[in-house]
Formats: sequence, structure tokens, C-alpha cells
Amino acid sequence: MAKKMSLLWGSGSPPCWRVMITLEEKRFQGYKRKLLSFEAGEHKSAEVLELNPRGQLPVFKHRDSVLNESIAACLFLENQYQLKGTRLLPQTPAEQALALQRMVEGITLNDKLNAVIYYEWFVPEEERCETGVKRSREVLGAELQLWEKYLEQVGPGAYLAGAFSLADVTVFPSVACAFRFGLSVLRYPKLAKYYSLLKGRASIKVSWPPHWLESPQGYDVLKDL
Amino acid sequence: MAKKMSLLWGSGSPPCWRVMITLEEKRFQGYKRKLLSFEAGEHKSAEVLELNPRGQLPVFKHRDSVLNESIAACLFLENQYQLKGTRLLPQTPAEQALALQRMVEGITLNDKLNAVIYYEWFVPEEERCETGVKRSREVLGAELQLWEKYLEQVGPGAYLAGAFSLADVTVFPSVACAFRFGLSVLRYPKLAKYYSLLKGRASIKVSWPPHWLESPQGYDVLKDL
Repeated sequence: MAKKMSLLWGSGSPPCWRVMITLEEKRFQGYKRKLLSFEAGEHKSAEVLELNPRGQLPVFKHRDSVLNESIAACLFLENQYQLKGTRLLPQTPAEQALALQRMVEGITLNDKLNAVIYYEWFVPEEERCETGVKRSREVLGAELQLWEKYLEQVGPGAYLAGAFSLADVTVFPSVACAFRFGLSVLRYPKLAKYYSLLKGRASIKVSWPPHWLESPQGYDVLKDL
Repeated sequence: MAKKMSLLWGSGSPPCWRVMITLEEKRFQGYKRKLLSFEAGEHKSAEVLELNPRGQLPVFKHRDSVLNESIAACLFLENQYQLKGTRLLPQTPAEQALALQRMVEGITLNDKLNAVIYYEWFVPEEERCETGVKRSREVLGAELQLWEKYLEQVGPGAYLAGAFSLADVTVFPSVACAFRFGLSVLRYPKLAKYYSLLKGRASIKVSWPPHWLESPQGYDVLKDL
């Protein structure tokens, strides 16, 4: 079945990474994939735009179906292949509710992270202003503190919703991204512990952004957050 | 079971409406619900903040589980009660992929709609600028044209992904909102047809925003889009 799947992706993109982790967890190694460069603008290439008119990555294909929303792709893979590889949605109502809730909240976390890290990318020069930057940083800080609280509630060494689930698939790449961009391990100890718990997981390790491996030195955009 | 569910909601909020449509489709009439006022700031009340720290509506409770992300609540209800009421996720892989894809894209549509309609709400006075407004409007126009194309692809009189599904549950409230705020029926004929196809559906009619019924006259923010 992996042969019927293909992925266009970019290195370091949390949405792309979500789909790759899911494919690993579901044991679909061997799917066709092609790494595109954001820097070279390849996410706006004809090849991408034909399948994803918004010009974003990932673009995941399953037979003739195109899923370019990462959450949709992950849900689809879990629904269609429930019994293959890792079960990524808990069955008990309370745990399933929590996993779905955190999964969708992961979109908000990533949006708020992007708004700070890629501020100059998203906001044209004439619209940039100090109050806008400051506000986005405060919003992100409050969001990250919320996740600290969530992790405190589940206890140390725990995943977001019981066993490893689509919640972690969705949220971990953003957490990794936050630390890559300088988030303080001291001020966000629960997130740091969560990061260190998951970064060695096989599905995550094998799909680690290649350009992060090539240049392990990150950035310090978030260091004062 | 409806007795074990409760909803805090606001009139005219697409995310709240999604959950209400799902509850109707799943025949959970009789759940406890409480209408809060955005104007009075009740979405930032202690009652809401205790369950949803971001101070947003809806807040849906299923027994002790809190689901305040509408997509999570709808997915949860469909997963837990697949055989009750309307089946909201198609079973064939291609249709399910399309339904999930359009459902998640519905979040983007709603975000872009909000960015225009509630510009002054989201952007503090000192950060507002004409280029920002213009850009948000262009982004929304392109987004709406994309949905015109999607509807053209499925053909007239069709839902977004085969039968009525979570895609429609998610997207319809935003489409209704767009017309409420003045979207041109002539320039967006496919969306207008889709709107008129679905607005009479029982689950949608019964959950129609009460303040829209009280003041049927809408706004013209989007009339030139």
C-alpha cells in the first residue's frame, strides 16, 4: 500500500513532519517522497499548485486522493488503517476526547509559533510594527504556558492524552520547533521534558528535519520568551 | 446520553454552530445548553475560562470531557456515535479523504473570513492600516474563489464530499456568515447555490443563529469582494 502513497514535503515544517511521523507509526515506510525547498520557493511551484492551490506543503497523495491538510491526512491514515502499526486514537471516550482536543489545539499552537518565528515572512514590510511583534510574542508566551499546564496535568513522562496519539503527532513538531528557535528549557521545564521524552522515539528520530541535522545550531528568536 | 452533554455557545459563531449541527444530526436534542453574549464579554467570564482557558466558545462537555475545539467535538461525536443519526464521515476511502480534507480546510476559510469581518476586533487601533485591510480582503477573495472551484468540481446540488458530512458541518456556517456579511450572490454563484441548498436542512434550520432571525438584515462588509 505504501506504493500508492506519495508526499511532497519541506524540511522543518511541522505540518509535513506530522504526516511523516504518522506514516512511520503506521509502518508505511517505502512511500514515495520528494523534498522541496521553501527557500527556493518550490512550495509555490506548478507541481505543488496543481495539487494544492494554496501553495503549501505537505501534499500527501493516497491513490487519487489529495490530502494537503496535515491533520486531515493523519486522521485519514488512522481511520483507514486502525489496526496497522500504532493505534493513534485512544478508544475510551475520555482519552479519545482529550486526544482530539489537544490535536486540534495543536493547530493554534503552531499558528502562534509561526506568527513570531516567521513574522517578517508573513507581514509585509510596510505593515510591520513593534507593537505587533510584542503582541504576537505575548500571545505565544501565554499559549506555551498553557501547554506547560496541560503537561503538568498529565504528569511527568506522559504523553498528551494517555498513550502516544495523534495529539503528540500534531503537537511534538511544534514543540521541537520552539526549542530549535531558542525556547528556554528553564522557563518551560514541562515542555522541555516532553521534548526530551519524545525526540528519541523511532518515528520521530527517523523523520527528523534533515537540515536540522546538518546544522544542529538553532536560533535564538524565542530565547527571551 | 444527551443529558450527559452540555454546551456553552454564542449566537452567530461558526464554531459553535458546527457543534450544534452535529448534535442535531446525531439526534442529541435535549442536551443542556446556555447562550452567552459575545457583546457582553461572557466568553471571557470565569465560567468559560475555567473550562476553556483561551476564553472562546463553544465549550462542549461530554460527561467529564471538555471539548472546546469545534472540530474535535464534531469528530468525537461522529466517532463515538457512528451509528446514531446521520453518518457524518463517508466510509469509502476517496470520499472520506475528501470530507476530512475539506473539513480541515474549513478552519482556514473561517480564519480568513474572521480576519476581514472582525478586523477591528482582532487588530488593536495602533496596528491597523489600509494595506493590512486590503491584503486580508484579497486573501479572503482568493479563498472564496477556491471554494467556488471546489463546488464546481462536485457539481450543482451536491455536498462538499458526496453525502452530507463533517465537511459541510464545518464549512456551511462560514458560508452562511459570508452571505450574512454581504457576499455577492452574483460573483459567488456556486457558494450561493450551496448556501441555498443547505439552509433549509433541518439540523441547520433549527440551530440558525437566533440574533440573525431577530434581525434578518445583515451587513455589507463583504459586498465589494
